[in-house]
Amino acid sequence: MKLTETDFQAWMGGIQARMEAALGRLLPPAHIAPARLHEAMRYATLEGGKRVRPLLVFAAGEVAGAKPERLEIAAAAVEMVHAYSLVHDDLPCMDDDVLRRGKPTVHVEYDEATAMLVGDALQALAFQLLAEHRLSDDPQVQLNMVKTLAVAGGSRGMAGGQQIDLESTGKALTVPELEFMHVHKTGALIRASVILGISCGGALGAEEAVRLDKFAKAIGLAFQVVDDVLDAEASTATLGKTAGKDSKQGKATYVSVLGLPRARELAQDLRGEALAALEAFGPRAARLRELGDFIVLRKF
Amino acid sequence: MKLTETDFQAWMGGIQARMEAALGRLLPPAHIAPARLHEAMRYATLEGGKRVRPLLVFAAGEVAGAKPERLEIAAAAVEMVHAYSLVHDDLPCMDDDVLRRGKPTVHVEYDEATAMLVGDALQALAFQLLAEHRLSDDPQVQLNMVKTLAVAGGSRGMAGGQQIDLESTGKALTVPELEFMHVHKTGALIRASVILGISCGGALGAEEAVRLDKFAKAIGLAFQVVDDVLDAEASTATLGKTAGKDSKQGKATYVSVLGLPRARELAQDLRGEALAALEAFGPRAARLRELGDFIVLRKF
Repeated sequence: MKLTETDFQAWMGGIQARMEAALGRLLPPAHIAPARLHEAMRYATLEGGKRVRPLLVFAAGEVAGAKPERLEIAAAAVEMVHAYSLVHDDLPCMDDDVLRRGKPTVHVEYDEATAMLVGDALQALAFQLLAEHRLSDDPQVQLNMVKTLAVAGGSRGMAGGQQIDLESTGKALTVPELEFMHVHKTGALIRASVILGISCGGALGAEEAVRLDKFAKAIGLAFQVVDDVLDAEASTATLGKTAGKDSKQGKATYVSVLGLPRARELAQDLRGEALAALEAFGPRAARLRELGDFIVLRKF
Repeated sequence: MKLTETDFQAWMGGIQARMEAALGRLLPPAHIAPARLHEAMRYATLEGGKRVRPLLVFAAGEVAGAKPERLEIAAAAVEMVHAYSLVHDDLPCMDDDVLRRGKPTVHVEYDEATAMLVGDALQALAFQLLAEHRLSDDPQVQLNMVKTLAVAGGSRGMAGGQQIDLESTGKALTVPELEFMHVHKTGALIRASVILGISCGGALGAEEAVRLDKFAKAIGLAFQVVDDVLDAEASTATLGKTAGKDSKQGKATYVSVLGLPRARELAQDLRGEALAALEAFGPRAARLRELGDFIVLRKF
């Protein structure tokens, strides 16, 4: 399948711009007390990354016919949880990173205590957003959305995945162990993005929900495998940013465990799984398909 | 007013025991992966403190005729947010405390990275609890509970108060500045406890809700003033735990700003305000009155 790049790129650029505006509006203004904290929350969240999770919320929302005004709130909540996890992950007691997306990390630009509070406050704000805006005609569905994000971010989701990551540094992992770590660390929030996007729209059948979750699980893992492949390629070629950092830190990656050719194959296999899970949806899932391809075929 | 101590003490002991059991049940079991994180979450939350916030949830719940099964979930959520804030607050980049309630703090017993993830995961679990249990007959009321806790814990509540605290260390504060800090740092969660307790029961009138919030605001401040008084008294007398720590760290306290006699007077004034706000409620507010007295008259 060939990407209709211009149309998809335009859609993606539109969502990214929309999210930048929404996040800017939903974060507390930098002049309101405590101003330094609010400024640092904005620094941590705005002008950041590809917005993969918000893109998934919007693409999944299209499958369920959800309104963009609702999707942008759900997407902002997921993105704030993602942003908080990066801020905490960059701290000296975790990965000790000084650069993120070419800018000093939050604890370098501000200080460690502020960075910790930025993360704490961003997490609280994510749940505030899911509770205070009307995201579904049924408040019970909206409570389920709160639960979805809480479980995905918690000890049996993202935070748990980070703990597993901490404990596995310097150890040789098997492929199932590596998968267990990533299913938690990054997979949980990616799956939550798809569920939240669907929840903003009409109800899906149970079978359809299972299929979309299969898609989300495969694409979440593919995302990580491709990250590892790009990281390994960069370290032998252009050497951008902190390339090869994970393997230098003694962290197992799909490339260190499988080797580069088999890791590339795995990414393609997961792409196939993800696309197969979408087959029954027809044109409603067009954006999800394109986004899946974008995630696997990206070069950065 | 004299406390009917035996009855109140028995009630308090009953709630404390009930909360210990509830938290033990609601926290992830220590043997489930990631086990170290789950064990540390339990270490941070169980066998801890007076459970002032849960006591407030239950006492406020009595005013609104709420069911204990609902109150214990709401109380567990508030207590988890409180527990997470202590774990993060004790970290080297914040207050750098090595002891809490006579036990090594979480980052000393485990490590800093685990302590950070414990806090992150406890916050997520608090919101999960508010979303996944039936706490009100009306799901919209329950969404409002999620919002209440999120706002109370966030940048314009507890986390914001900690930021103000950080920035004011070593500075001379005025009484209004000190109050502004505490209204955020500890007051927000105490007020949220009262609102959550009420929300578990039938609806209160708007006027009644305002009165209870007045009570909560006064008692929240009184709690802090009494803390400062006890801390100052202990440093000149028995010298328990880390007595006088705040003043040694150059942090403004009600005693350092007002002096001991006027700080004691302020605590009594706030107690008077709190009790006055409860007048219209009659016997329904008996526990709240006793709890208010307990908070102001306590000796530890």
